[in-house]
Order: sequence, then structure tokens, then C-alpha cells
Amino acid sequence: MSTDFRFAVNVTPKPGILDPQGRAVEGSLGHLGIDGVSAVRVGRRVELTVDAADEGAARAIVDRLASELLSNPLIEAYAVEAIGAASSTVGAAGEGR
Amino acid sequence: MSTDFRFAVNVTPKPGILDPQGRAVEGSLGHLGIDGVSAVRVGRRVELTVDAADEGAARAIVDRLASELLSNPLIEAYAVEAIGAASSTVGAAGEGR
Repeated sequence: MSTDFRFAVNVTPKPGILDPQGRAVEGSLGHLGIDGVSAVRVGRRVELTVDAADEGAARAIVDRLASELLSNPLIEAYAVEAIGAASSTVGAAGEGR
Repeated sequence: MSTDFRFAVNVTPKPGILDPQGRAVEGSLGHLGIDGVSAVRVGRRVELTVDAADEGAARAIVDRLASELLSNPLIEAYAVEAIGAASSTVGAAGEGR
């Protein structure tokens, strides 16, 4: 029997790494008349469902995926976050599998 | 006097909207020998610092930025998250401004 776990992987440029998308956002703030916003960093957020025996096993799969496929470890950092309330798992987790 | 607040804006494709990046990730899972991963959705994560009088005022600025600049409301949803422990605000928040 296995259970569905929903995770998010947040991938952000490491400190010191150039972030042209972040600079572009900062450059647009003036046109919107928005003051006081700084240190903008633009990264990716990947949400996914893992079918595994327990949360530890699921998290190990997500960690491998994050480091080998979803991020570039030279220039990006990632953080894994459990997001329980995903619509794709509601009513399905652990039922009759 | 004002204070620095650090937020993240998570932008994800709305349910039902085609997500070619998510399909590409799913297509790569086999090459990595990873089983049991599904429902991959790829979005953006934007982290930023707002200098404002209080957290409510800061959040209002982030909401405006998220809906007018960081997301396309036709096809994307966004969620705003307070992330207190940003290095850019350590030791600076509310001090002598």
C-alpha cells in the first residue's frame, strides 16, 4: 500500500549569482508607481505528487529529483516543502492501493 | 519609521491550463529511473523585500505587484507567503529609519 504526497520544490538563484529576471522586475517598479521594493529574486516553483510508502521515502525521491533535474547546483539552491492540501490528493491518499 | 518585510510570491499555472514545462519534467523521469511521480506543475517563485510601515501595508504592495506584474491572471494563480528569515532584512528591520 502506498500514499500520495504533494510537495513543492522552490528553486532560487544562489546569493551573488546574477539574476536578470529579478533586475527586470525591479526595473518595472517605477512604471507601476511602486516604491520600497528591493532585493527581488526570481526562481522556479515545481509542485508534484509522489506515490510512496511513507513521507520519508517520498521526500527522498523529491530530493533526488530536485538536485538532479530541477535545479542547477552550481548556481541555484532549492528547498523542499510539503504541501498537504493539494487537490490531486484529496480523498485519494492511502485509499485501497 | 518603516520596516523591511520579506515575501515570496508563488505563481502557478491554473488547473486545466496546459503546462509544457511540467510535461517535460514528467517525460524526463523515466531517464532518471524515478517512478511514482505525477501531476508536475512548473511555476515561478519571486522573493522580494518591501519597506513599509507595517505588514499589512507591505502585503498590499506585494498583492498589487503579484497581480499586475508577476502573474498573468488569465492563466496563472498566485499565493503570497511571508518569509521572515531573509538575510537581506537581518539586523536592518525597523532600526533607525
